[in-house]
Amino acid sequence: MEVGFLGLGIMGKAMAANLLKNGFKVTVWNRTLSKCEELVEQGASIGENPAAVINKCKYTIAMLSDPKAALSVVFDKDGVLEQICKGKGYIDMSTVDADTSSKISEAITEKGGLFLEAPVSGSKKPAEDGQLVILAAGEKALYEEAIPAFDILGKKAFFLGQVGNGAKMKLVVNMIMGSMMNALSEGLTLADKSGLSEDTLLDVLDLGAIANPMFRMKGPSMIKSSYPPAFPLKHQQKDMRLALALGDENAVSMPIAAASNEAFKKARSMGLGDLDFSAVHEVVKATRGSGDA
Amino acid sequence: MEVGFLGLGIMGKAMAANLLKNGFKVTVWNRTLSKCEELVEQGASIGENPAAVINKCKYTIAMLSDPKAALSVVFDKDGVLEQICKGKGYIDMSTVDADTSSKISEAITEKGGLFLEAPVSGSKKPAEDGQLVILAAGEKALYEEAIPAFDILGKKAFFLGQVGNGAKMKLVVNMIMGSMMNALSEGLTLADKSGLSEDTLLDVLDLGAIANPMFRMKGPSMIKSSYPPAFPLKHQQKDMRLALALGDENAVSMPIAAASNEAFKKARSMGLGDLDFSAVHEVVKATRGSGDA
Amino acid sequence: MEVGFLGLGIMGKAMAANLLKNGFKVTVWNRTLSKCEELVEQGASIGENPAAVINKCKYTIAMLSDPKAALSVVFDKDGVLEQICKGKGYIDMSTVDADTSSKISEAITEKGGLFLEAPVSGSKKPAEDGQLVILAAGEKALYEEAIPAFDILGKKAFFLGQVGNGAKMKLVVNMIMGSMMNALSEGLTLADKSGLSEDTLLDVLDLGAIANPMFRMKGPSMIKSSYPPAFPLKHQQKDMRLALALGDENAVSMPIAAASNEAFKKARSMGLGDLDFSAVHEVVKATRGSGDA
Amino acid sequence: MEVGFLGLGIMGKAMAANLLKNGFKVTVWNRTLSKCEELVEQGASIGENPAAVINKCKYTIAMLSDPKAALSVVFDKDGVLEQICKGKGYIDMSTVDADTSSKISEAITEKGGLFLEAPVSGSKKPAEDGQLVILAAGEKALYEEAIPAFDILGKKAFFLGQVGNGAKMKLVVNMIMGSMMNALSEGLTLADKSGLSEDTLLDVLDLGAIANPMFRMKGPSMIKSSYPPAFPLKHQQKDMRLALALGDENAVSMPIAAASNEAFKKARSMGLGDLDFSAVHEVVKATRGSGDA
Repeated sequence: MEVGFLGLGIMGKAMAANLLKNGFKVTVWNRTLSKCEELVEQGASIGENPAAVINKCKYTIAMLSDPKAALSVVFDKDGVLEQICKGKGYIDMSTVDADTSSKISEAITEKGGLFLEAPVSGSKKPAEDGQLVILAAGEKALYEEAIPAFDILGKKAFFLGQVGNGAKMKLVVNMIMGSMMNALSEGLTLADKSGLSEDTLLDVLDLGAIANPMFRMKGPSMIKSSYPPAFPLKHQQKDMRLALALGDENAVSMPIAAASNEAFKKARSMGLGDLDFSAVHEVVKATRGSGDA
Repeated sequence: MEVGFLGLGIMGKAMAANLLKNGFKVTVWNRTLSKCEELVEQGASIGENPAAVINKCKYTIAMLSDPKAALSVVFDKDGVLEQICKGKGYIDMSTVDADTSSKISEAITEKGGLFLEAPVSGSKKPAEDGQLVILAAGEKALYEEAIPAFDILGKKAFFLGQVGNGAKMKLVVNMIMGSMMNALSEGLTLADKSGLSEDTLLDVLDLGAIANPMFRMKGPSMIKSSYPPAFPLKHQQKDMRLALALGDENAVSMPIAAASNEAFKKARSMGLGDLDFSAVHEVVKATRGSGDA
Repeated sequence: MEVGFLGLGIMGKAMAANLLKNGFKVTVWNRTLSKCEELVEQGASIGENPAAVINKCKYTIAMLSDPKAALSVVFDKDGVLEQICKGKGYIDMSTVDADTSSKISEAITEKGGLFLEAPVSGSKKPAEDGQLVILAAGEKALYEEAIPAFDILGKKAFFLGQVGNGAKMKLVVNMIMGSMMNALSEGLTLADKSGLSEDTLLDVLDLGAIANPMFRMKGPSMIKSSYPPAFPLKHQQKDMRLALALGDENAVSMPIAAASNEAFKKARSMGLGDLDFSAVHEVVKATRGSGDA
Repeated sequence: MEVGFLGLGIMGKAMAANLLKNGFKVTVWNRTLSKCEELVEQGASIGENPAAVINKCKYTIAMLSDPKAALSVVFDKDGVLEQICKGKGYIDMSTVDADTSSKISEAITEKGGLFLEAPVSGSKKPAEDGQLVILAAGEKALYEEAIPAFDILGKKAFFLGQVGNGAKMKLVVNMIMGSMMNALSEGLTLADKSGLSEDTLLDVLDLGAIANPMFRMKGPSMIKSSYPPAFPLKHQQKDMRLALALGDENAVSMPIAAASNEAFKKARSMGLGDLDFSAVHEVVKATRGSGDA
């Protein structure tokens, strides 16, 4: 099978390589063309611009760094819109906001093309291992056409209905994650201040009904006040804000998410926005001076 | 090895049976003596009262239903106190509050006995499978003596230091669990009201960094508004209250736990205290009349 | 002095009448022209459209029902923009969002006109009594020119700096008000459920350091579950959302406002959005079935 | 009329003096007897111990510093209990917890005496001016007998029913006050960070529906980060904890009070417990480093 691939950052490169390894013919493009070389060695063809890739392939996958790049690749000169047409598909796997996704969707559809948003859950390692979770929404027929590719890229793909639902699902998941992070942080702090070992708490948690990879991964570094940015706190807080806005739209009251969001905001006000989102632990455990008066 | 065992409820019976199956000689006692029969068939001896069991065994394990029973077995006529003495150990694995535990500890210690509190995490199934998590605190020497028994009863035993720390550790774990339950409930509600499938949300969660047995176990029944009581909501709320009180003592600010506690209190006010603690979902998703005005 | 006045709703009519009574010459306009008659009887002239009013007067005050009306009066055919020019002033006293205000401000300023936003605090009665509180922001020179009018319309006018600050100040005030309303509601509920008289609580509050007109005015009807809409709950919730968004922008953590906002959202989900904002009391006191389990 | 008075601290001295000034015959006692002299000059008699005062007077008022003093005066040698009897009344106006109050009540009642708890709202100045608010509960007949004294001591006295209700009413009022303090603090912080003047916010608030003495009194010093202890933060937090516990007993969910309580706890953890309760402002506005990342 033949597929186009736009965007060869950390994620995109790993994903395109997996497609090549599994028998796909892939035509790649990247803004910095030199990044294509490694993939050419693995058997890829090069398209000279997004329009050329679209022209050559029945459907094209994009994995771009942010909404600005996602829009530019579609709307700029030599962009996707110039060649997309009836019968061709465009699958945007970048993480973008609902507005961006719907702008792209409308433009593609107007030209007769098929559109699918398909943001993923998982970062570098799962991308390399073909273990992403794919949250697809939009044109069902295109989803079905892309299943062989999704089977290679991810451990599981979901079709979630209309465009926008992929982004919404990510927000809901990240909201729960943000509240859980606060819950863990409060538990670690309470353990510590009550004379219990935080390490033992993590061990006990890991043996019980709420054991989960995030506690296992983040807990030990939180104890050491180390927060190397895997998922930056300011992005987590933005997602919680958007999830709360979604709740506002639908009159859903979410006091735990709201309280968690305020803790992340406090962390931002403390200058921790670029650290990992687990740095909210600094807010929870923060004290000053000589303790209780 | 020889060990006493007081209390043959659902948990105690399974635990004593495991000890028997693994080569321990066990002398059992239960308030309703008929409950001992099944264990006698499996090879147990019977003690006619708690004092008699203590008298016969180097150390005795108790697994009683509540603080009242735990106190009665120790302090009443023919109780533990009448025979406990230097060289003998008493291990209370019941879930009791800190006050009860410390009363028992003092009384045992005053008679020269060794005391260990060892509440467990896990219910019927883990008890049967010898997969409990044991949170022991008190006399280190007795803990070490009991390791062979703990190895049979649980998948892991922790020694947490002074008496009271076992109960505290349980509170911290249950507090985190209560906040996580609220986070899940808010996520399910937001998904539903935003036009996403709750079942799909559970599937997505189960593939990611916050996948955990509780979400897997409770999520599907929450979607169906079904809350068969595994851990009653009123007990969960009591534990959150006690955890917050522990935080108050130590000047630890825990806004997420506090907000979760208020949700559980609201559930109590709605008459849901005897259902499973996942019934807090009824609070989160509750609406009335025709929706948003 | 001569002044234009656009918009003769409940507020505008009372304000224009006060200006007339106090010696101002007023040229009025209203979309439904018949509403002008009453003011003509009191001595007002009529302008046939907003442009005509602007043309005739050195400065013009507008008091319109919502952002849509505020924009229409300025940008539509025969609107303010057609005649505004160097030396003329436009004072918008409507309650509009920051975006609307800044759009109008830019358009007026581009034409050389002077702009002042001047939302008010206070409703019908204070408007009639000339007891409004005026939150002005924008062109300082225009503010000073309008002081004689503001002295008639309000008990106090503030100049708050750049355009947008008037709207922001209202949000901050309404945010505090929303949190206080929740605090009162919780207090009333706790009193009632603890066997104290809610009426007596209101009496005690009114004698102490936190006595305030809102508690005095809303408290008695809240006890009777009566919420005739003075300030609709959905507008209060919108203001809290916007205040929280302003906090988000500036990394200000506000957990009490956030928790209050979630209570108002719950009220919306219960269909109470069109009632007075004191109807959040229904959320706080809500129970179901037979009470605590 | 003749009345006994035990306890001549700042409050008690002012209250006893008011009774003397208004024609009461007063027999006073204080642990440090020298403190009685000033009142003797104003016409008071001295009782050599609490029992002697009780013996001499039909009813006796006590105004003691804390629960320990309140208990000691009643139960110690030469205490109230030795002379209290049928027909005699004891009115405890000290601020004590429900347990203390009910212990004293039971002891007095058992001897045939009449008991009234009557904590007050208001401190030194209102005590001097006879402007206290009196929250009485217990024996109705004694309340009625004491009305002439209450008319002198306070601007208003309430009879609240059974013993304990006076303390409960104070908790409810202080809970609302604590939430309002947090609301004000959030508003001040939001104003400041959004480019508005905090002083102007206070002016605007004072002209509107939520104007109240506390905002007027505490606001200006909060802006200056000055918190001279009028009502210590640790006492405010204790009252919020007790109010929340009362809510827990009665299954009342109070998320705003709970969030406010956590802010006060954070303030305690920062070493601010001995400052005025308005010092919670330090928690709300706290940031670190160079702001948002």
